[in-house]
Amino acid sequence: MAPLRSWLNIESSSDFSIANIPFGIISTAVDPLPRVATAIGSLALDLHAFAQGNGFARLSTIQPHQSVFSQPTLNAFAALGRPMHRVCREYIQSILLEDGPFPDVFQNNHALQQSALIPLEECRMHLPMQIGDYTDFYAGLHHAYNVGVLFRGPQNALQPNYKHLPVGYHGRASSVVVSGTPVRRPNGQILLDPTAEPKQPVLSPCHKLDIELELGCFVCKPSKLGEPVAIGKAADYLFGLVLLNDWSARDIQAWEYVPLGPFTSKSFCTTISPWVVLMDALEPFATHGLKNDAEVLPYLDEKDRKAHYAIDLSVSLTTASDKSTVISTTSAKNLLFSFPQMLTHHTIGGCPFNVGDLLGSGTISGESASGKGCLLEQTENGKVAVQLEGGEQRSFLQDGDIITLTGRCIGENGAIVGFGSCTGRIEPALKL
Amino acid sequence: MAPLRSWLNIESSSDFSIANIPFGIISTAVDPLPRVATAIGSLALDLHAFAQGNGFARLSTIQPHQSVFSQPTLNAFAALGRPMHRVCREYIQSILLEDGPFPDVFQNNHALQQSALIPLEECRMHLPMQIGDYTDFYAGLHHAYNVGVLFRGPQNALQPNYKHLPVGYHGRASSVVVSGTPVRRPNGQILLDPTAEPKQPVLSPCHKLDIELELGCFVCKPSKLGEPVAIGKAADYLFGLVLLNDWSARDIQAWEYVPLGPFTSKSFCTTISPWVVLMDALEPFATHGLKNDAEVLPYLDEKDRKAHYAIDLSVSLTTASDKSTVISTTSAKNLLFSFPQMLTHHTIGGCPFNVGDLLGSGTISGESASGKGCLLEQTENGKVAVQLEGGEQRSFLQDGDIITLTGRCIGENGAIVGFGSCTGRIEPALKL
Ligand SMILES: [Ca+2]
Ligand SMILES: [Ca+2]
Ligand SMILES: [Mg+2]
Ligand SMILES: [Mg+2]
Ligand code: NI
Repeated sequence: MAPLRSWLNIESSSDFSIANIPFGIISTAVDPLPRVATAIGSLALDLHAFAQGNGFARLSTIQPHQSVFSQPTLNAFAALGRPMHRVCREYIQSILLEDGPFPDVFQNNHALQQSALIPLEECRMHLPMQIGDYTDFYAGLHHAYNVGVLFRGPQNALQPNYKHLPVGYHGRASSVVVSGTPVRRPNGQILLDPTAEPKQPVLSPCHKLDIELELGCFVCKPSKLGEPVAIGKAADYLFGLVLLNDWSARDIQAWEYVPLGPFTSKSFCTTISPWVVLMDALEPFATHGLKNDAEVLPYLDEKDRKAHYAIDLSVSLTTASDKSTVISTTSAKNLLFSFPQMLTHHTIGGCPFNVGDLLGSGTISGESASGKGCLLEQTENGKVAVQLEGGEQRSFLQDGDIITLTGRCIGENGAIVGFGSCTGRIEPALKL
Repeated sequence: MAPLRSWLNIESSSDFSIANIPFGIISTAVDPLPRVATAIGSLALDLHAFAQGNGFARLSTIQPHQSVFSQPTLNAFAALGRPMHRVCREYIQSILLEDGPFPDVFQNNHALQQSALIPLEECRMHLPMQIGDYTDFYAGLHHAYNVGVLFRGPQNALQPNYKHLPVGYHGRASSVVVSGTPVRRPNGQILLDPTAEPKQPVLSPCHKLDIELELGCFVCKPSKLGEPVAIGKAADYLFGLVLLNDWSARDIQAWEYVPLGPFTSKSFCTTISPWVVLMDALEPFATHGLKNDAEVLPYLDEKDRKAHYAIDLSVSLTTASDKSTVISTTSAKNLLFSFPQMLTHHTIGGCPFNVGDLLGSGTISGESASGKGCLLEQTENGKVAVQLEGGEQRSFLQDGDIITLTGRCIGENGAIVGFGSCTGRIEPALKL
């Protein structure tokens, strides 16, 4: 199949090809009200302006719902459900298509182009969803194994439950921020000498500030208290994916996390990319995840359905002296459990979901040394420094470091479905 | 000091004396729109109707903000801040007071009484706040010790971090429900024989369904990402307290919780009482909590301030055959950390708070056998059954059991500041 071509000039290397059509929230200097847009090449298509200019003239099903594009979050659009996401995305593709069916709507409508197309560099991006609850899973098998080896050795690396259920914990929705938000190094309680007795913590800036390369998945359909979502229905609840960096304070985590799990070591900040890539856009890249050699219980059995995505992921670190190094590359298929399995397990006891809830995949690491999704793994908890371009090295993050996650799928025909970037710069800890 | 007396007829045993003035959300058959009310004796005072009928005529400061009383949650009222809560509460007390300063406003205004006073039994109660994030702590020292003894023996009962920081975990905001909501027994993964190898879980209804007697505390002031709330300022952020039952599935918890903490074993349901008792109403009952024999770090040091409350708590169990037994009585002062300390610790790394966020205290148990706040402790994980009125006994909860939490402070003058009740009835697990 030849790639879809647009009458707009889109660089072939753009994450936002006509095969993508992600959704996000923009504002501009001229119009500071946050509103819905899609990204196409180097442009945002302002869907609020597009709707107001009758851009949806040839899609009657969306017309009673066009106010969703004037909202400051994607929640209302998401709540319309997957069939509506599909027709909206395909309609937007059709009006951007070279030799498309409706050239009068947009291609030949210069007034509407004028009002609705905005260079991406003029857009301020906002958090795409209002997040009710955020849950972070731990489905990256290689990551869980590598971290387990560090702390418990290879025999006991994985806990007995690990392959039977997607291990996860409730995260802090209020601390999820959009790409570009500065990340202040957290203060917290730390044991400077973990072997000394009695154990006496100090209050200190985190010395082991780390990243976690993850995918985030937004929910578009509510579920009721007491009513599990069956595995066969779970995909209907999934809106789309973003990149997610679960910044982690390893020294704070080590002291606080027994017995109830990570807490302030996580909830100081979690960064997501601004463009939600719809599940439909990812469907051509569906693949199997990692093979689970434990047989999962029937309620989690996907019956060999391809529920993972072949997304190429990368992590780069840019120092304060502006040298960038790619410190990790891997694929999103390195997960033991899929988002449908996570949702189904999460609801098995009756936990309800709201539109806008966020699931994190857990840190995604490949099997090889070049594909580790956090510094804890790469540096073996600080023992082996990572070498950077320009001669610096890192055990953990320094103030001024910028971390950038990217993710992209490359189709057989060369069409790219990408996520843009998910970045954050480390600012010094607050002096207390 | 003589107790305050109202011109309304209030039973002396009522939780809702004129010394209380809690805030909640009601609706009625006649007016199904949820709105703000206070409780006084056996009546609700509908503050939406009261404001519309010019009941706030003599409180000019609230007048620009009266729309807060027509909202379906208390968030907007809470966001007005503690000084405004104080004047509103005192004003409502003044208009209810025998020989009060403004008899024309209400006491002699039968039309307004007609429209604004509603028997509590005609009110449907709603969740009082829209909860952004919910965090559950573990500050009940005796509970943590007793549970630690069960699983690790007396030498290692408390983890090394326990006295240095308020241990807590992020909970699931979407699963917090108002008193009276049925509680469906969760299904989940359980190890029927924890000693068998290899460990093979089954999907099963929870066999060890338990309660946790806790207090909940609502936040009324936002804090910013990256900006900790100093211990001396933390009280300004606290709106009021409710009773909280953190229903817990012990068998599911045992299998899932390593290493990231409790998850589906908690997030199937958490019940809170509907009336938020303002911090000001509790101030006369301020007291010290449990002495911490570890010296806390300065950022948590309350400098001997009385930051706990002498609230008498009880748990009763009513069987399907309608026999009730009080299974626990204790005091809310059995906490090692206060809500200001929890908030300060929670924000030390920069975690932001929103109005409506909820903090749970952790299970509150007294030192004595009669004061244990959960069945896990009372029955030593099912080994010693609790004897009930009517001859039944319980290791854990059975279908049809109703659990009712109560909490009340009794002033020197006999005036009661109480919470009403926090109840839930166990429904059978869903057949999967
Ligand atoms: Ca993570
Ligand atoms: Ca609890
Ligand atoms: Mg939430
Ligand atoms: Mg939340
Ligand atoms: Ni009304």
